[in-house]
This record gives sequence, structure tokens and C-alpha cells, in this order.
Amino acid sequence: MVGPGDGATAAELGAAEELGRLLAEAGVVVVSGGLGGVMEAACRGARSVGGLTLGILPGRDRREANPHVEVAVPTGMGEARNALVVRAADAVVAVGGAYGTLSEIALALKTGKPVVGLHTWELARGGEPDGGVTRVESAGDAARTALDLARK
Amino acid sequence: MVGPGDGATAAELGAAEELGRLLAEAGVVVVSGGLGGVMEAACRGARSVGGLTLGILPGRDRREANPHVEVAVPTGMGEARNALVVRAADAVVAVGGAYGTLSEIALALKTGKPVVGLHTWELARGGEPDGGVTRVESAGDAARTALDLARK
Amino acid sequence: MVGPGDGATAAELGAAEELGRLLAEAGVVVVSGGLGGVMEAACRGARSVGGLTLGILPGRDRREANPHVEVAVPTGMGEARNALVVRAADAVVAVGGAYGTLSEIALALKTGKPVVGLHTWELARGGEPDGGVTRVESAGDAARTALDLARK
Amino acid sequence: MVGPGDGATAAELGAAEELGRLLAEAGVVVVSGGLGGVMEAACRGARSVGGLTLGILPGRDRREANPHVEVAVPTGMGEARNALVVRAADAVVAVGGAYGTLSEIALALKTGKPVVGLHTWELARGGEPDGGVTRVESAGDAARTALDLARK
Repeated sequence: MVGPGDGATAAELGAAEELGRLLAEAGVVVVSGGLGGVMEAACRGARSVGGLTLGILPGRDRREANPHVEVAVPTGMGEARNALVVRAADAVVAVGGAYGTLSEIALALKTGKPVVGLHTWELARGGEPDGGVTRVESAGDAARTALDLARK
Repeated sequence: MVGPGDGATAAELGAAEELGRLLAEAGVVVVSGGLGGVMEAACRGARSVGGLTLGILPGRDRREANPHVEVAVPTGMGEARNALVVRAADAVVAVGGAYGTLSEIALALKTGKPVVGLHTWELARGGEPDGGVTRVESAGDAARTALDLARK
Repeated sequence: MVGPGDGATAAELGAAEELGRLLAEAGVVVVSGGLGGVMEAACRGARSVGGLTLGILPGRDRREANPHVEVAVPTGMGEARNALVVRAADAVVAVGGAYGTLSEIALALKTGKPVVGLHTWELARGGEPDGGVTRVESAGDAARTALDLARK
Repeated sequence: MVGPGDGATAAELGAAEELGRLLAEAGVVVVSGGLGGVMEAACRGARSVGGLTLGILPGRDRREANPHVEVAVPTGMGEARNALVVRAADAVVAVGGAYGTLSEIALALKTGKPVVGLHTWELARGGEPDGGVTRVESAGDAARTALDLARK
């Protein structure tokens, strides 16, 4: 689950929370960057149904994790930790997204991990849209699609 | 200088080589991921005029660097090294580009480094183009723009 | 909890398992490098009483974790991940140890984390023993000392 | 070339400078952590004869490098960058040394890189000295031994 710490819309935060809940109900560990915004909403949703949440943090201090992170990994690597968030996941769901989210989408596509996008970046080259991200319109669709793609 | 190891067009490779030469003539160290394709073309251009080239490699073996890398740093970090390529640069020029290049563009924008793009990714959200990448049409323009933005 | 994947003695493995159990009973998350040997023994001990285990792996594949790792973080960073194991911990207990363990002891001492040692490295400079590692003689002492030092 | 930024003796600094000079005269790139103390002395020595120096920095800012670093790689990884210093080298010479140096010695031994030590850590387990570090008594011996071991 990747998405921005700041600047997410209420709709994006609501979708992230619902998605966290749906993924946790499916028995999945919800991995994120462990900070606020979309990441916190997803963790809150997962914890609300007793799910397990893993936060891979940019700084060195576990206390920078949001309160719904059950297992925090402080990397001290700054945004280089984005590659570790992607490596820890079987599928990536991007909700909203600023440039950090874009880097996680790119790293997932580069390493062959499925990426599901909800209100996130649109990518093109030479005027041709790139088909790497599976685009969905709701949290329910995002959860179903991610679980389906991760199983393949 | 970021760009793909495989699948670049002849025009992209030619532009990368010219760009490497122009940057080296300006006294700049040319930093890249140190592998083939666009990275090798840029290093070849820089070395052709006696420039210094730094290659930050994904693997553990210095011998995976292209022959025009003067100083090789084998990181053993896989694509997580992309964040280090970006950190080592004052400005990023993307020529062509696959998903790895997209991650470097995103990491540079995330950390406030200027990004110049030549035949590279087009980014949008909600149908609105993102203005983060300064788009140019030639190697000469790319070199001038990158040097100018890096000085600011 | 740091220690070797290979070459541990039966006494070291027994101590690691007891230590994992004692730490988990104290409500602590047991963090390790996630592989076999001493790491696996500690995880087995922790899981035997329902504890939570975090394995920070050197490779990219979660399946390289031992079966008692509950949350696996595949870093793909090789032995550079040793710094992340240390960062994720409030105190480090070294049981036995080869060179990888020595690097973790050193990184913990460098960053001011308490280190408890059981049958592990002895360090000196200019013939003078270094006092950085608190040496203990049993798993029980190691658990008590580590919990005590971590609380400070 | 690994060694402490702070607290080195005048003899250690003098040896580091001589060593940097001797290695550069042999045509070797001098790799270090790029900061002050022993690292700066080695870089100064290497530059005094026109050698090439590579500094792999813990922080994100190239300006933290000492003035004798020709190519700086700011990693932003803190002491996790110690693994990268070791990976970039064919042989490691430790002069003096605090805990960070000890971690570099350990990581080099772990990955099979030769380690030469001058006034550095003494390692033992169970009262038995460890033979991993080749101990020498002068900068000249250190340079000869490191060049010899790196060639093997």
C-alpha cells in the first residue's frame, strides 16, 4: 500500500482505510512506508479488524511510525527505503500519490510486481499510455484485484 | 544521466553520447548507473574528451560496469541503488527510459533535484500533466538546461 | 538477537532458543537476520510462546526466511542489511558469532545501542580489552540484562 | 582505507597519509568513508601525488566530504554505508579504529576481502585470537601487503 503522507484528499484517505481493512480481512500483512496520510489510513483500517501492519520507515527512529504500525523497521535510508517497501510486498496498491509514490510504482513495475492504482499517476511515453498499472475505481476493486494479482 | 540499459533507440544512444561529451566539456562528473545502453553511451561521450565518469552499480562486482566507467561503486543493492545515483547528482537528465529511469525521475523530483527529460516519460494525474520534468528536444538543450538548473 | 546461520554449537543454539522464549514472554518483538542457525533457534523459542518475530533478510525472496519468522522483510542488500537489523532493535544480544555477528556488534556499539554477549567476540585494542559488550554466562542473564539495558 | 574520523593519534594520522600516498603511487584508487581524521589523512596523501580518491559518505550532502575527496558519493544511509565502502574496495587497510572501523573490518572478513591492520582491533573468541586480519607495523608494510593481497 503506497501513497502520500501529506496532501491526500478525504476520498483517498477513506479509500485507503477501507482497503487496509479489506486486505487485513483477507489475512494479508499490510506493508507501507509507516508514516501519516494514506499510509496511516491503511494501517488504521487493517488494525480495526486485528490485522498485522508493517511500516518500513525512512528515518532511524521507530517513534516516527504512525500509531497503527504494529511492526516498525526504521531504515535510516531516507527515500531509498521505497525500494524496500516494494520488495516486502507481493502486490502494490497506489492510492493517490505524490512523487514518492511514483517512485514506488516505478520500482514495482521494474521488478515485476503487480501494481493496482486508484486515483494515481497516469504514465505515457511518446504520447502512448503505459499499461503497467491496473487502474481501478474503488477500494473494493483495488483489494480484489491486488489479491488476485498477488496470487498469480 | 539516467536511462535504460536495454531497448534504447539509436537516436537516444546518440543523444546520450553527445550529452556525456557536452557535460564533460563543462567540467562536470558524469554520474550514472554504470551499465550498458544509454548509461554506456553517456560514459563513452564523457571519456572521449577526458571527462570523469562515476558508475553506481546494482550488483557487487565492479566488473559489471561498462568500460567507460572510471570510478565504479558496486552497491549490491539492486534497484535500491537508483536512490544513490540520484543523490550523487546535482541535476538529473533522463534520456529515453524504462521503469528504472522512471523511478530515478520520481526520486529526483521527490528530493527536489532538477530533472531534464529528452524522449522520456510523460506524467499526469487526474488528466492534468505534471510539470516537474523540464522537457527538451536535443542533447545540446539538455546539457545547457541541466547545467543551468544545477547551478541554481 | 544476532548470531551465525552456520557453525553454531548445540549449547549456543539451546541458549538462543531459550533467549527467544524469554524475550517473547517479556512482550518483546524478536528481531533477527531471519535465516537459520542461531537466528532460527531464537525465532522458534519466541514463537513457541506466541511471540512476534521479525526477520530482516539479506536476499530479495521472503521464502529464504526460517519458518518461525512471522514478518519477513527481504532487503536485497546482502550483508548491508546488518545495519538495518541493528537499527530495528532497542538492544542487541549476540550469541556465538562469526564475522557477520561481529559487524552487528560493531554497528550497535557505534550507534549507542546496548550489546549483551554470550559466548561471543572478545575485543581489544593495544592489548586493552574493550568494555562495550556486556558479557553474560546464561540465556536467563542475557534476557534480563538486555531488557534492563533496553529500558534505560 | 578505513579508520576513525575522530580521536586518531598523530602516529595513526601520519601512517594514514603515508599509506594514501603509497597506494596512489601504485595507481590504486583510494576508497574511504570520505570524512575527517584517518580518512582525510589518507586522501591528502593520495592527492599529494595526483591520485584518485573516492569518498562514500554517510550523509546526503556532498559537502561533508573532506577537501581531498575527488569523487564523493553521498549515500544518506548513515553507518549502513560502511558495507558500501567495503564493497568498493579490493582490500581493506584499517589504521587505528573505533567501532565504525570494526564494523568495516568485520564486513570485509565476512565477504572474503583481505584486511590489513595497523594499530587496530584485536579479535578473539573463547580466548583464541582470530587470524582474519593481517597485522603490520608500518605504512610501508601495510601498502605492500594490501597491494599483494588485492592482486591474489
